[in-house]
Amino acid sequence: MTVQTPVSIDQSEQVDQLVARLGAEGRAAQRALARLTDADKAMALRAAARSIREREAEILAANALDIAAGEASGLGAAMLDRLRLDSARLAGIAAAVEQVASLPDPVGEVIDTATRPNGLALSRVRVPIGLIGIIYESRPNVTVDAAALCLRSGNATLLRGGSEAVNSNRALHSAFVAGIEAEGIPAAAVQLMPTQDRAAVGAMLAAAGVIDMIVPRGGKSLVERVQADARVPVLAHLDGICHTYVHSSANPDMAREIALNAKMRRTGICGAMETLLIDARFAAASQVAAALIDAGCELRGDARACALDPRIGPASAEDWDTEYLDAVLSLAIVDGLDEALAHIERHSSGHTEAIVTQDEEAAERFLAEVDSAIVMVNASTQFADGGEFGLGAEIGIATGRLHARGPVALEGLTTYKWLVRGTGQLRP
Amino acid sequence: MTVQTPVSIDQSEQVDQLVARLGAEGRAAQRALARLTDADKAMALRAAARSIREREAEILAANALDIAAGEASGLGAAMLDRLRLDSARLAGIAAAVEQVASLPDPVGEVIDTATRPNGLALSRVRVPIGLIGIIYESRPNVTVDAAALCLRSGNATLLRGGSEAVNSNRALHSAFVAGIEAEGIPAAAVQLMPTQDRAAVGAMLAAAGVIDMIVPRGGKSLVERVQADARVPVLAHLDGICHTYVHSSANPDMAREIALNAKMRRTGICGAMETLLIDARFAAASQVAAALIDAGCELRGDARACALDPRIGPASAEDWDTEYLDAVLSLAIVDGLDEALAHIERHSSGHTEAIVTQDEEAAERFLAEVDSAIVMVNASTQFADGGEFGLGAEIGIATGRLHARGPVALEGLTTYKWLVRGTGQLRP
Repeated sequence: MTVQTPVSIDQSEQVDQLVARLGAEGRAAQRALARLTDADKAMALRAAARSIREREAEILAANALDIAAGEASGLGAAMLDRLRLDSARLAGIAAAVEQVASLPDPVGEVIDTATRPNGLALSRVRVPIGLIGIIYESRPNVTVDAAALCLRSGNATLLRGGSEAVNSNRALHSAFVAGIEAEGIPAAAVQLMPTQDRAAVGAMLAAAGVIDMIVPRGGKSLVERVQADARVPVLAHLDGICHTYVHSSANPDMAREIALNAKMRRTGICGAMETLLIDARFAAASQVAAALIDAGCELRGDARACALDPRIGPASAEDWDTEYLDAVLSLAIVDGLDEALAHIERHSSGHTEAIVTQDEEAAERFLAEVDSAIVMVNASTQFADGGEFGLGAEIGIATGRLHARGPVALEGLTTYKWLVRGTGQLRP
Repeated sequence: MTVQTPVSIDQSEQVDQLVARLGAEGRAAQRALARLTDADKAMALRAAARSIREREAEILAANALDIAAGEASGLGAAMLDRLRLDSARLAGIAAAVEQVASLPDPVGEVIDTATRPNGLALSRVRVPIGLIGIIYESRPNVTVDAAALCLRSGNATLLRGGSEAVNSNRALHSAFVAGIEAEGIPAAAVQLMPTQDRAAVGAMLAAAGVIDMIVPRGGKSLVERVQADARVPVLAHLDGICHTYVHSSANPDMAREIALNAKMRRTGICGAMETLLIDARFAAASQVAAALIDAGCELRGDARACALDPRIGPASAEDWDTEYLDAVLSLAIVDGLDEALAHIERHSSGHTEAIVTQDEEAAERFLAEVDSAIVMVNASTQFADGGEFGLGAEIGIATGRLHARGPVALEGLTTYKWLVRGTGQLRP
């Protein structure tokens, strides 16, 4: 396996010095980005997409090196599939960049304005955050997706992908940068960490004041490590333990179809339902449970749930706090809305919860009292997605309570500043 | 000095267990707060203000204990002044609570709405953040000001004041809580740390997942310690190294008056100007410098500034990065807007910068390119204040880049959730 080193790196440089240097270069490039117009940034992204298409042979060859190394080192089939690129996937990556180019630019948006009695004219205007660190695993498309979203919103990126995708990431990064450089954007606006030294991740996490925000993209252990060690603000979600509550008034067909879709459409996504709460007064509970079992889902229930169907096994205490990401579901029978709310308050990860009901009052109480990033009425939790919300694309879903919550797209990659226009006002 | 212990505390309880317990109780109380209406919260705040007035004798007696202890332990005059309460100051504290009661409630505000092609109706709605930790020093009014702002926006608070104000804080806290409890709000919505053990501050800073945000209120060493050690998001500013740039086109009288006001109105606030940049082509530089010196300000300049007036001493390299908070100013002569922008980029703390100019193009470039929380044209930097911005009151000024920036008031004490109303939609 040939590993190229496209960025010069002084071997004696410590990783923390390296991160400081890349950070300073990235921040300087970001100041140039911040002065670009909407059209400049869109044009640069379209050039990056063209460059990726033009370099297809080179990118697929680099990816073949990663696949060969992965096979040799015994990577599992799922990991190899996440790693693998082909013509169609690469075309999808380039098309996604063009889609980001077509999204409205949030930078410069005036959030609000006011004129004070003394004549000072105030406005709050969206500006880029600065330098965003992206720490990710085996999917090479993240290199391009994250860089495109950050550039669209005027931010510089410092990317650190997984070792298993090192050649693919370098080839994609170099194609992306060639495209934006041709449009006059400094290469340092999108940097790929030039070393796979694991200490570089630690140095990024510690780089408060250099990196403005870190977005981890990958499995739970990656997110856990980033959240535990970061001194830089992190935008992420750790778990998606999503609940659906079937209220006594729910339409039985709707309840069954929503439960099936929320659990079984794709079991491995963070918006998949992991716990179903069925009201004891809902008459069609066993039909909903049977439909899930017939669709291939394993059900683990509390005592009343187990009585619904002999195929339902008993749930352990841990089941209520487990994100299965698989065709497994925990099922509890609850006595009314208050008990459902209490269960959710205790076990939810704050991602997405839904109620199925025909009772408007119950729906509004559920919307008001469930304290999660996304709260739904009569819809599948699998809609928890930036694209489905009309945001165009998302950098991730956040369950933290500050800055941005739920699906985070371009607006979440901005901050604001206050502009004050005066005519010589003095403070008395 | 008598120290009462108004909250029961098991002496064997470790401070981290104490913080976890208070956090859980606070969060439970916050869930009750989140269900209150605007009118409920306003009424509770007015009851708290009444209770503070009714307990004047008790609060002033407690304060007298702190003052006596402070005098005995040799506290400086400035510290004693910050600590001291009297009838007028206490009336001001109660009136400030009523003023917060009269501010519009941000909770429930619909930020935006959208209907998707599949009929899903989306809205983003403001909700409280949760439990806010306030760590502060000798000013007892912070106990009440911070609790009032947090309660107005539906948040619970965990307050940790300085040891020197322990009796005053307990008396004010107990008056505040008596008022809100009379209106049916649980006492745990506003908690005062029941121990002055210094380890309790460390336990609060480490309480990620228990405390949602920490606001430090006090001097630079407090803010530095909180920012360095916190695992919980912190809303703060460390420095206010505010610049004013006098452009070549500036009106000489306006430049002089703004410089005098920005520096000398109050030298100890974070919005006070610390560095003045005067364009080499601005004709009245020596008049501006002389006016500042005549007003009692010490000037420290670069070589060209020193040539303006024999009373200007030379600035050292550190002066450009110093927040004096005193009648001292660093003064540099710069060649044009680009040099001013470069100086600000290198030395600003990201708080507030201003330009004085009659040239609209220069003004707009300054507004666009200065990357600080607040950027002003033809106004005194001393306007950097939530009250002056019409926000009613502020919990602090933030120079971080996420969540909220500049003066932070009620809106900055909220987050949002996504509400999705469907009619049985399934994700294809």
